[in-house]
Amino acid sequence: MGRVNGSPVKVGLLGCGNVGAALVDLIDEQADAIAARTSLRLEVARVAVHSPAKERSVDLESGILTTDAASIVTDPAIDVVVEVIGGIEPARTLIRTALEHGKPVVTANKELLANVGAELHDAAAAAGVQLLFEASVAGGIPLIRPLRESLAGERLRRVMGIVNGTTNFILTRMSERGSSFQEALAEAQTLGYAERDPTADVEGFDAGAKAAIIASVAFGVHVVAGDVYREGISSITSADIAFAARLGYVVKLLAIVESLDDEVAVRVHPAMVPVDHPLATVRESFNAVFIEGDAVGELMLYGRGAGGRPTASAVLGDLIDAASNLGRAPTAPREVAKARIRPIDELSSQYYLNLEVADRPGVLAAVAGVFGAHDVSIKAAEQEGLGDEARLIFITHVARERDMQATLRGLHALDVVDRVGTLLRVIGGD
Amino acid sequence: MGRVNGSPVKVGLLGCGNVGAALVDLIDEQADAIAARTSLRLEVARVAVHSPAKERSVDLESGILTTDAASIVTDPAIDVVVEVIGGIEPARTLIRTALEHGKPVVTANKELLANVGAELHDAAAAAGVQLLFEASVAGGIPLIRPLRESLAGERLRRVMGIVNGTTNFILTRMSERGSSFQEALAEAQTLGYAERDPTADVEGFDAGAKAAIIASVAFGVHVVAGDVYREGISSITSADIAFAARLGYVVKLLAIVESLDDEVAVRVHPAMVPVDHPLATVRESFNAVFIEGDAVGELMLYGRGAGGRPTASAVLGDLIDAASNLGRAPTAPREVAKARIRPIDELSSQYYLNLEVADRPGVLAAVAGVFGAHDVSIKAAEQEGLGDEARLIFITHVARERDMQATLRGLHALDVVDRVGTLLRVIGGD
Repeated sequence: MGRVNGSPVKVGLLGCGNVGAALVDLIDEQADAIAARTSLRLEVARVAVHSPAKERSVDLESGILTTDAASIVTDPAIDVVVEVIGGIEPARTLIRTALEHGKPVVTANKELLANVGAELHDAAAAAGVQLLFEASVAGGIPLIRPLRESLAGERLRRVMGIVNGTTNFILTRMSERGSSFQEALAEAQTLGYAERDPTADVEGFDAGAKAAIIASVAFGVHVVAGDVYREGISSITSADIAFAARLGYVVKLLAIVESLDDEVAVRVHPAMVPVDHPLATVRESFNAVFIEGDAVGELMLYGRGAGGRPTASAVLGDLIDAASNLGRAPTAPREVAKARIRPIDELSSQYYLNLEVADRPGVLAAVAGVFGAHDVSIKAAEQEGLGDEARLIFITHVARERDMQATLRGLHALDVVDRVGTLLRVIGGD
Repeated sequence: MGRVNGSPVKVGLLGCGNVGAALVDLIDEQADAIAARTSLRLEVARVAVHSPAKERSVDLESGILTTDAASIVTDPAIDVVVEVIGGIEPARTLIRTALEHGKPVVTANKELLANVGAELHDAAAAAGVQLLFEASVAGGIPLIRPLRESLAGERLRRVMGIVNGTTNFILTRMSERGSSFQEALAEAQTLGYAERDPTADVEGFDAGAKAAIIASVAFGVHVVAGDVYREGISSITSADIAFAARLGYVVKLLAIVESLDDEVAVRVHPAMVPVDHPLATVRESFNAVFIEGDAVGELMLYGRGAGGRPTASAVLGDLIDAASNLGRAPTAPREVAKARIRPIDELSSQYYLNLEVADRPGVLAAVAGVFGAHDVSIKAAEQEGLGDEARLIFITHVARERDMQATLRGLHALDVVDRVGTLLRVIGGD
């Protein structure tokens, strides 16, 4: 029970932005209810911020705020450290120091875990304290704890997630209102879903970091952000989405991690998801993670993947866990080795491709010849006029990525092909 | 770690039916992987069955099977007990005895927990050992652990679940193929989804037991099966489902638990769910639980709610948890008091009702007058001819259940009303 004497559990909070402020509020609102159910009283004892003079929505007693984060992680009076600064440094050094001082750490920092997670897990294991990070992936959705604990005995085959709310919002607008990518992005920016520089979201870097963390937890190996094959959504057109819809698919940006014999595949790219797949129903800025296991079959966990209060809720769940287990060595399984990553070239999938071609006899034969020359078999082809040009749409049978990429190069080289559109991988046909 | 010396964790299994046999297989398949990740080696040391001579799909060494379940729960060599017998006795006595002998218990027994859960939780707390029951609700879907741990700091307002796969299969068939209830039930029986006597499923008893467990865990109070208001689906017609579809709804059997000030409401009944609600997309025999919390917003957990292997997967997750924590006092929050249950009469909802009436002037006025006399305000009404008769379909504004029931009695008494159809509560309009 950690605290049989009933003294409060003193929390040191690093960072007081969106998530940190929501956490302070949430602890304030829920402290009595938590105490009634768990016998633990949480107290935000110290809060490290960059600019103490800045106007804040939260009410903190004087003396709690400090600019000296390093003094919190070494303070003997602090029982648990919560890190919501984000980024690599100073978060990395602060967390290491906290762990080395025997303090369990709760973090929401995906960038840190996806890059130097192994170092931090090792430091936590060496110190015999917990490092918890539920909030680092998919915000308020319980994902890390179910993967580590509920599914501890499960052989997981694949996890596919819509883990970036910004891109899901953009794709939903493009799909449901026919907006262009630029229009939908502008709307997401106006609503505060997308940053002024949207690169991290729309080019898949954010989802890639989360994919690395999911793969590490799901397969018990060590995967870093740099291992993740990554494509974003900025080249997707409303035409691609309309064709997908006509063929019975919805376009989603997916983080996909798979266990393949003794290797793992980890990738982020837009994909065509059949309309009757549970992931196809995930709209707006919601997130969802679809899990396939040998015994459990199909699971999906759905909810708010971002936002101050949903993320703070996940941090608070971890914080209560850490506080309940103060003074006890952690039992959670740890990552054991660097994963062997199977390169994207060696994976297989069905593919969707659209081409703009000259509208004259023999073009389909020339184009189809390129597919055939690279062992990519066409499942369905459609042609439609575009004035002097024509558009060809292909869905392939399952083919190797290497062969499909060679096909793309061959098509680019063909002079009857004016434009090679977005290559989309088809989920469910593999 | 519980087992630093590396000796196997000896599991005593009570019952070896569908779930028990799947668990034995799963431990067999996964023992090495579990040992690699957790340093725990699970060993099914003894298995209690009713008829040892019966043909079984699992391979058990001789000497493991016994008919003497009582000897397992008192055996000093057994570390953890798994109960998958089902029903109240002898499961109750066996679990109590196991707990009193200091053994953590994992159970999949919803009937037991929904009826005498408090007694068992008290016995576990008194003995300082874990009682885990993830598999008792929604099969392989991680639900109990997320509710107890991930959402430990969350003020939950409402949990709504499709927690019975048989009825969801039947309703899906009625909705998508226009089958009658009897046709869909017969198909479910042929496929093995429904029992020969389908009462427990179709009249909502199974969902009711699960609702009691969900309410207990979500709100930290003690709720029993007898507290649950319950209606089944056997009076739903394909016409009801067709009308619901025309109005933009899908009919689902829901287990709904709500926190209302210092009371809880716990009920199971068919409901009209808007087509764009995540629960509306849950088809066939899948289960899903939709959770609404103050900070986390909306969550949904989706997957296989039944079946040997999915259920065994949940049991195995609990078993690894119990094995990891051998010798350590549990930290999980406990139920604290008997809940105050708000009676269904005092709840409010929007309602759907269809009536068969005589087709003559003044009927709508007479019928509408009954609604008005009981303070039930009509939001939308539709009339269609049925030969000499007419059908009236109503959707009300939010009204109190007591007033709606009085309206039903008034309508039954009206001689222009030939038949009062199924009353369905509308989700999302309250």
